[in-house]
Amino acid sequence: MTIMEPVRCTVEIEEGRLAGGTGRYEKRLSDLHGIYADEAAFAALLASGDPVVYAVEDLKPTLGAGDMIFGITRMAPGRVGEEYFVTRGHIHAVANRPEIYYGESGAGLMLLESPDGEIRIVEIGPKTVCYVPPYWIHRSVNVGAEDLVMTFAYPADSGQDYDIIARAGGMRQRIVADGATGWRAVDNAAYRPRDAAEVERVFATAA
Amino acid sequence: MTIMEPVRCTVEIEEGRLAGGTGRYEKRLSDLHGIYADEAAFAALLASGDPVVYAVEDLKPTLGAGDMIFGITRMAPGRVGEEYFVTRGHIHAVANRPEIYYGESGAGLMLLESPDGEIRIVEIGPKTVCYVPPYWIHRSVNVGAEDLVMTFAYPADSGQDYDIIARAGGMRQRIVADGATGWRAVDNAAYRPRDAAEVERVFATAA
Repeated sequence: MTIMEPVRCTVEIEEGRLAGGTGRYEKRLSDLHGIYADEAAFAALLASGDPVVYAVEDLKPTLGAGDMIFGITRMAPGRVGEEYFVTRGHIHAVANRPEIYYGESGAGLMLLESPDGEIRIVEIGPKTVCYVPPYWIHRSVNVGAEDLVMTFAYPADSGQDYDIIARAGGMRQRIVADGATGWRAVDNAAYRPRDAAEVERVFATAA
Repeated sequence: MTIMEPVRCTVEIEEGRLAGGTGRYEKRLSDLHGIYADEAAFAALLASGDPVVYAVEDLKPTLGAGDMIFGITRMAPGRVGEEYFVTRGHIHAVANRPEIYYGESGAGLMLLESPDGEIRIVEIGPKTVCYVPPYWIHRSVNVGAEDLVMTFAYPADSGQDYDIIARAGGMRQRIVADGATGWRAVDNAAYRPRDAAEVERVFATAA
């Protein structure tokens, strides 16, 4: 039987690179339409350019059950109106898969929402680990003035369901600026709670 | 349905601590009897005290399939005769489970052996990731003059089979000092290759 060769990668924090990895993607502001509350501010920022909001590099050895994917994400600092730059956010398509985030530099938050709409917020700085348990929708937020860089790992068969957030009109709360350097969570007026059948469908994806 | 709360931990590199974790264990020299080639040097070192060779702190959210365990290991620098300090080493009891090691400080090696006795060596320094694929026996080696500190993650249902190494008379190679600051791999005279039935039993643990 042929087995896979060990892999050595190097994490380059400032550049947000995983040298030796297998993949990379970027999300620009134009990829994040509909996520932010202030549509006028979104349009104005887009008109002045289309910045990279975040980039991910990873190593996907296989997509098989029992394997793991790891990588690095670098988020730019910035806001759309009062709202801090965020990732699209997702729940795992196999919703009982966890994820581990590890702060490398910058100041961020993990914004988490349970299927029935409970919000949790975990502050992430250098050397902070955030364990995202099974069944939590999660989105990263850069609340600092510098890049937010995190490494991460998750089970290779997790998959991502991004649409769960859009279907609910967003996450239940948004993270906005509070004074010059602070943040606060405010309710998202567009949020529509999931009904019992939708919540049940999330739990039914467990494997 | 009740779901697990998110967890925030802090990694303390110099101390080798995972603040907010759930477990800790230490291995002293006396726990590593039979691993090193030079029994006289082992006895002499033990007589002069019983040093902690390595300590591990981790967070085990659950032991369920699809979950992940993460933590930190700190290995002391040192040698038993010419042979550098090593961990016991293991293969996963469910052998198709991988492991990710991430160098935090110090200079180390991951010594890997396939079931049929192929050796691979991955050098690990700060910001190096070593991906240990399914089916590799693996052991960490501190080849530096300082503590070797690594963080790690692996599937929660992996389990550890430590005895596979002892049954073969050790790993196929040992890592010994080569000059003042170098290292080299030498064959382990006590090594007994696994026969085809033993190799088959390893692959049969896959889940």
